[in-house]
Amino acid sequence: MSDLPEMMNAVVVAHPGGPEVLHVEQRPRPSPGEGEILIAVEAAGINRPDTLQRQGLYPPPPGAPDTLGLEVAGKIVALGAKATRFSLGDSVLALVPGGGYAQYCVAHESNALPIPAGLSMIEAAAIPETFFTVWTNVFDRGALKAGETLLVHGGTSGIGTTAIALAKAFGATVIATAGSDDKTIACAKLGADFVVNYRTSDFVAATMAATDSRGADVILDMVGGDYVARNYAAAAVGGRIVQIAFLNGPKATLDLRPLMIKRLVHTGSTLRPRAPAAKAVIADALHAKVWPLLAAGRCKPVIDSTYPLAEAASAHARMESSAHIGKIVFTL
Amino acid sequence: MSDLPEMMNAVVVAHPGGPEVLHVEQRPRPSPGEGEILIAVEAAGINRPDTLQRQGLYPPPPGAPDTLGLEVAGKIVALGAKATRFSLGDSVLALVPGGGYAQYCVAHESNALPIPAGLSMIEAAAIPETFFTVWTNVFDRGALKAGETLLVHGGTSGIGTTAIALAKAFGATVIATAGSDDKTIACAKLGADFVVNYRTSDFVAATMAATDSRGADVILDMVGGDYVARNYAAAAVGGRIVQIAFLNGPKATLDLRPLMIKRLVHTGSTLRPRAPAAKAVIADALHAKVWPLLAAGRCKPVIDSTYPLAEAASAHARMESSAHIGKIVFTL
Repeated sequence: MSDLPEMMNAVVVAHPGGPEVLHVEQRPRPSPGEGEILIAVEAAGINRPDTLQRQGLYPPPPGAPDTLGLEVAGKIVALGAKATRFSLGDSVLALVPGGGYAQYCVAHESNALPIPAGLSMIEAAAIPETFFTVWTNVFDRGALKAGETLLVHGGTSGIGTTAIALAKAFGATVIATAGSDDKTIACAKLGADFVVNYRTSDFVAATMAATDSRGADVILDMVGGDYVARNYAAAAVGGRIVQIAFLNGPKATLDLRPLMIKRLVHTGSTLRPRAPAAKAVIADALHAKVWPLLAAGRCKPVIDSTYPLAEAASAHARMESSAHIGKIVFTL
Repeated sequence: MSDLPEMMNAVVVAHPGGPEVLHVEQRPRPSPGEGEILIAVEAAGINRPDTLQRQGLYPPPPGAPDTLGLEVAGKIVALGAKATRFSLGDSVLALVPGGGYAQYCVAHESNALPIPAGLSMIEAAAIPETFFTVWTNVFDRGALKAGETLLVHGGTSGIGTTAIALAKAFGATVIATAGSDDKTIACAKLGADFVVNYRTSDFVAATMAATDSRGADVILDMVGGDYVARNYAAAAVGGRIVQIAFLNGPKATLDLRPLMIKRLVHTGSTLRPRAPAAKAVIADALHAKVWPLLAAGRCKPVIDSTYPLAEAASAHARMESSAHIGKIVFTL
């Protein structure tokens, strides 16, 4: 590591606030610990939790860097003690607990994966957060199977576009909601079988119409609030509702009878606070089940736009405008 | 069937109301259809849904008899077409969709099981509803495993006493709630490791104290209402909360963050409306996993009291007093 610089560029949050509080600063380059690798970042994905952390609403978990950024792609430039999975110079993508908006970033080797053949660094950086999230929630917790129906809210978000792509690749029928006709058209182009503009249509009625009144087998929800009772109404007998965020707030007044009468499962999870070993289990499943599909071009991350680190404020402003379709990515 | 009487005694509901509306009447004896058996009832269990049906609050599902009673034990006196599992004269217990409070009752043969060695007809009739319910909810849906902790509300109810017995038999730690010190003592005698008088203690704090602040892995709840948020608080990371009734009402105002942060599973089910084939799956599991324990005396139904059919009003009054510990059973 003697030829690596001591300092690096990183996006830091001057104080909690709007996108304008982001700026690039010189920070000490991190060093990999046991089982960790150091990545020279070539691209870094932006996620909605980053915007919450910038506002001071989502403190990093204990032990995580205080700088933003949950996913990167780049080349390995240093190996920590007992890091044996990769070699110096390997191109990898990685899910990281923080610190992705920087020239160098540390990842646990078990949370890094080789870049699937044919994908650019930008596409690779757009993968970890949404693919880990969709896999563990839709396929593990939600147990979506071929022939079943997935209802995904926020169909044009990074999570939404990934859920559409993966669910279609695994043989499910997909119903996607979005907030404009442009966005529902984008969902359809990505493969959604049915789309709902939630501003003009009721997604419960639309789901029932699309499923011959059976309802959705799995619902991926990041909205919460009044959506919860409506998700119960839109779910099929035996349906699984997986909660990954609460954009409309975590409080709900519910009649729980559908949970019992339809034998629903309401569950959820968060990814970031989990230990590297738990994320490694997801990484292994993705490598086995999804990497072949990515290499074969059968699913692909959707890129909305790219920004240099120096334009971090503009990147966050775009995320918060909700005008984006797919992922927003930094290039270094 | 020529030597069977055309008419039989059955408990009927004159009109929706209190226990006093129950009286014995002559009704036509039912005949078994395809795959069904006719049982000469020697004992019939009483369950809380019966009291709701009596009040007009729980109409029988389509195709079920309009008379009360969800479980019986007795001897087989007629076989329907294609009923091949049992022989005339066999002693069986059965889960039935209705009509158990009568001299004769029809059951689907796949929902009947031989009476475990050493059990009386009264004990046998006390088994089906609670054992089917606890098995499918605690062990199937809730996936309770040896070494885990079950929190069961209503520990002295038929469901509660069965849940305590089965969870202990399968190696779990059990925390039971009940509404008086007499009842918590009864729960402890049945094997509960920890008991909580919910009128004088907070079950969330008690669960945390009993589990070194880990929480309960499975919670069996028939209370609902304000218990739902408290169940979320009492659950361990990865905990499963299974809802089988709503004695305090099905409406809840909830903060759903624990569902996501602790990766909880909130689910539930109802038994009665399910098809015989679904109940047969539960019957088969009970036969394989629980019948050997019953035959070995390692678990046992708890009998509170017995009544003749003519005293149906007294039997229901006792159920509604909530003074009972274990099952209330009719003898014929």
